[in-house]
Amino acid sequence: MLFHVRMDVRLPHDLPQEEAVEIIAREKAYSQELQRSGKWRHIWRIAGEYANYSVFDVKDNTELHEILSGLPLFKFMHIEVAPLLRHPSSIRGDDT
Amino acid sequence: MLFHVRMDVRLPHDLPQEEAVEIIAREKAYSQELQRSGKWRHIWRIAGEYANYSVFDVKDNTELHEILSGLPLFKFMHIEVAPLLRHPSSIRGDDT
Amino acid sequence: MLFHVRMDVRLPHDLPQEEAVEIIAREKAYSQELQRSGKWRHIWRIAGEYANYSVFDVKDNTELHEILSGLPLFKFMHIEVAPLLRHPSSIRGDDT
Amino acid sequence: MLFHVRMDVRLPHDLPQEEAVEIIAREKAYSQELQRSGKWRHIWRIAGEYANYSVFDVKDNTELHEILSGLPLFKFMHIEVAPLLRHPSSIRGDDT
Amino acid sequence: MLFHVRMDVRLPHDLPQEEAVEIIAREKAYSQELQRSGKWRHIWRIAGEYANYSVFDVKDNTELHEILSGLPLFKFMHIEVAPLLRHPSSIRGDDT
Amino acid sequence: MLFHVRMDVRLPHDLPQEEAVEIIAREKAYSQELQRSGKWRHIWRIAGEYANYSVFDVKDNTELHEILSGLPLFKFMHIEVAPLLRHPSSIRGDDT
Amino acid sequence: MLFHVRMDVRLPHDLPQEEAVEIIAREKAYSQELQRSGKWRHIWRIAGEYANYSVFDVKDNTELHEILSGLPLFKFMHIEVAPLLRHPSSIRGDDT
Amino acid sequence: MLFHVRMDVRLPHDLPQEEAVEIIAREKAYSQELQRSGKWRHIWRIAGEYANYSVFDVKDNTELHEILSGLPLFKFMHIEVAPLLRHPSSIRGDDT
Amino acid sequence: MLFHVRMDVRLPHDLPQEEAVEIIAREKAYSQELQRSGKWRHIWRIAGEYANYSVFDVKDNTELHEILSGLPLFKFMHIEVAPLLRHPSSIRGDDT
Amino acid sequence: MLFHVRMDVRLPHDLPQEEAVEIIAREKAYSQELQRSGKWRHIWRIAGEYANYSVFDVKDNTELHEILSGLPLFKFMHIEVAPLLRHPSSIRGDDT
Repeated sequence: MLFHVRMDVRLPHDLPQEEAVEIIAREKAYSQELQRSGKWRHIWRIAGEYANYSVFDVKDNTELHEILSGLPLFKFMHIEVAPLLRHPSSIRGDDT
Repeated sequence: MLFHVRMDVRLPHDLPQEEAVEIIAREKAYSQELQRSGKWRHIWRIAGEYANYSVFDVKDNTELHEILSGLPLFKFMHIEVAPLLRHPSSIRGDDT
Repeated sequence: MLFHVRMDVRLPHDLPQEEAVEIIAREKAYSQELQRSGKWRHIWRIAGEYANYSVFDVKDNTELHEILSGLPLFKFMHIEVAPLLRHPSSIRGDDT
Repeated sequence: MLFHVRMDVRLPHDLPQEEAVEIIAREKAYSQELQRSGKWRHIWRIAGEYANYSVFDVKDNTELHEILSGLPLFKFMHIEVAPLLRHPSSIRGDDT
Repeated sequence: MLFHVRMDVRLPHDLPQEEAVEIIAREKAYSQELQRSGKWRHIWRIAGEYANYSVFDVKDNTELHEILSGLPLFKFMHIEVAPLLRHPSSIRGDDT
Repeated sequence: MLFHVRMDVRLPHDLPQEEAVEIIAREKAYSQELQRSGKWRHIWRIAGEYANYSVFDVKDNTELHEILSGLPLFKFMHIEVAPLLRHPSSIRGDDT
Repeated sequence: MLFHVRMDVRLPHDLPQEEAVEIIAREKAYSQELQRSGKWRHIWRIAGEYANYSVFDVKDNTELHEILSGLPLFKFMHIEVAPLLRHPSSIRGDDT
Repeated sequence: MLFHVRMDVRLPHDLPQEEAVEIIAREKAYSQELQRSGKWRHIWRIAGEYANYSVFDVKDNTELHEILSGLPLFKFMHIEVAPLLRHPSSIRGDDT
Repeated sequence: MLFHVRMDVRLPHDLPQEEAVEIIAREKAYSQELQRSGKWRHIWRIAGEYANYSVFDVKDNTELHEILSGLPLFKFMHIEVAPLLRHPSSIRGDDT
Repeated sequence: MLFHVRMDVRLPHDLPQEEAVEIIAREKAYSQELQRSGKWRHIWRIAGEYANYSVFDVKDNTELHEILSGLPLFKFMHIEVAPLLRHPSSIRGDDT
């Protein structure tokens, strides 16, 4: 089941540099593991912003929330979620 | 080059039914031709709304505008565009 | 799987009275059938507004969209959807 | 009498960890006591957000305010309240 | 129980003059009857706008909704409701 | 002359507790003195929020500003003002 | 007593040309009479918009509302009012 | 050439009192010098807010920006600018 | 003197086709004449929208307003204006 | 390929003065190097604001993001990007 997610990262300017570096590294590893599992299907950077548009493929809302609330940067993010489905004009039989 | 596009369709309630059906059929054909060409890479319905999130892969801004302004439903749509790029945390080498 | 939905109805003021009455009657029948099936778990009127807050229990995003886009009043509604899940502070084991 | 409430929690990032843990524990206990009493009828997590949608069943506005302003997390919350009532399309005779 | 209500009236510019006059007359009679009963405790015009701030004293949310949805101008209004209560700094023992 | 005022209080979370207590006590005394003088005609708590709706009866804009800018909590408040007058549908001859 | 007013004019595109011309002429005459009386102290066009910023000098809120609601274009306007007073940094003793 | 300017002042609550007093004094002197020169034609306090509406008469955009960015409180202000001109309904031949 | 202008065109869907074509042709001729005179320095289409960003070089606010309010599409446009000036980091001595 | 960019700078008020001066100097050098290369085609100050409107000419979205995210002030900026193209009414054959 697909979800469209926009994540905006807002790091406090007084966050110590080493702490920021460490969290961002954990964030990347966390994201890549989920990408490899197929649950984080797409991630794109939005040009000019510290933000991304992502598409998740999870089994239900609970799994989506566990993934998002587990993000190392979660407490520094503003997140917006929209449930997606196959579009009737899609040329493909599935939701890719 | 990728662009994230959100399209919201707002048909006037006094649009004659046959006219609406005809435009929507042309819209679908137009979209599917672009999907087959690879330029309209993704299209997803947003649950509960007469709207979609799409990803376009075009050679430049001009091509994007020609595609969007050529939509049969263009004059009944509100459209928002954001330029995308490969995310540094992506596990893939390209922007898919 | 639960979804929180807010529906705001905006009937055009020049909609013929008999047409309005007929659509609203179909809307009510449609809603009640879904309530009886358990898919439309709650529906509450928001005081002072032609609007409701509802909770749907469906198997996935696709079913949610089919239900909402099938509403007789769909083209006169503004709809907002949010995916829900059991809250960790809930005293119940399920998502009721 | 029913009220729909949305609560968004915004913990300051420099809140000491132990203080956060302690407040959240008190919040949970407070919420569960009210759930057991029947006054906090529903609480759902909104997927991807540190937020909830709740439904309260209280005797009047004063009791609602006493409950909400007594929340241990109250000073870190943004709260929106809407009065609810039985919807005329409900299949049930009461406001459940 | 008190509610704060803001009503903004938006008459369609093509509403026939005699129809407008007739609705506004019914609106006034309806409002004055409720004022005399004590349920519509205050009504003030907002300077420069076709709008009012009102305070209602009703027994519950259901009664509030019946009153508001029964307004002859209801379908031409945008309405916002907020539940009120006695303020702890009030010098009066009741909610006046 | 009447003014409708909405006040939202936003205390910084790192304001020392004793300082907060002292300001709130001064705020209450200040408000009650103005209520007794008849200038602060109404004050109501908005359910679920650290906010109030008030009605002031002052001789002009200058007096209103002196009262509001003199509030002990003024620097922690967001304030919105709207000038009011007797509504033409009021059953009373004055602006009460 | 001074009030700052912003007026945005929105003529329906299907308003007959002769009707528009006639209303605008009455609007101008109405405005100029109030300017000559000193009650409409300033009126400025906002560059690029069918809108103006004005300053009114009236004896109270009621007079302000009578003037604004009497504007021939009132039903085609969106109006915002803010009460003004002499600024403490003004070099003048009055509110000019 | 005229410009309409709204300035909202937002002093950080942890700004030392003596620093605030000193900046505000410099702000007042700076404003009064510009008022005496005729460039800051009007300044009015907005009732209930730490804000003002002003009208500037400068020779071009550059001079306007130099004046505004030179305000001692500039870094604590939110500023909105709108270019003005003589209104066609004005009874005066100039832009006063 | 430079101004940044955003224009959004909103043609009513029931505008007769021949009328739309005629207005758009006049709009183009009007724009091109101003471009040739150097007053409409830049005009760019915003991808995906019936809108443009433009830069005008005019002698004052009055000339800007005359140009914008003279646009054949003016009554179908939403326009936003911002005064510009040479940026202190510009490598050029003028405002190009 | 052109992009319209608005940058709003928000320096934290507690940023040490010497740090601010140093970053702003690096920002200026960075901007000027890109202007000389032709990639940062225009930069204009918005009158009254710590903000600019800029036009970039880059080969794709990726280059745009590298430039913007490399700004020394990036973490203190709010940035909005819109893809541009030659307007059909332009008198020039290219997108200048």
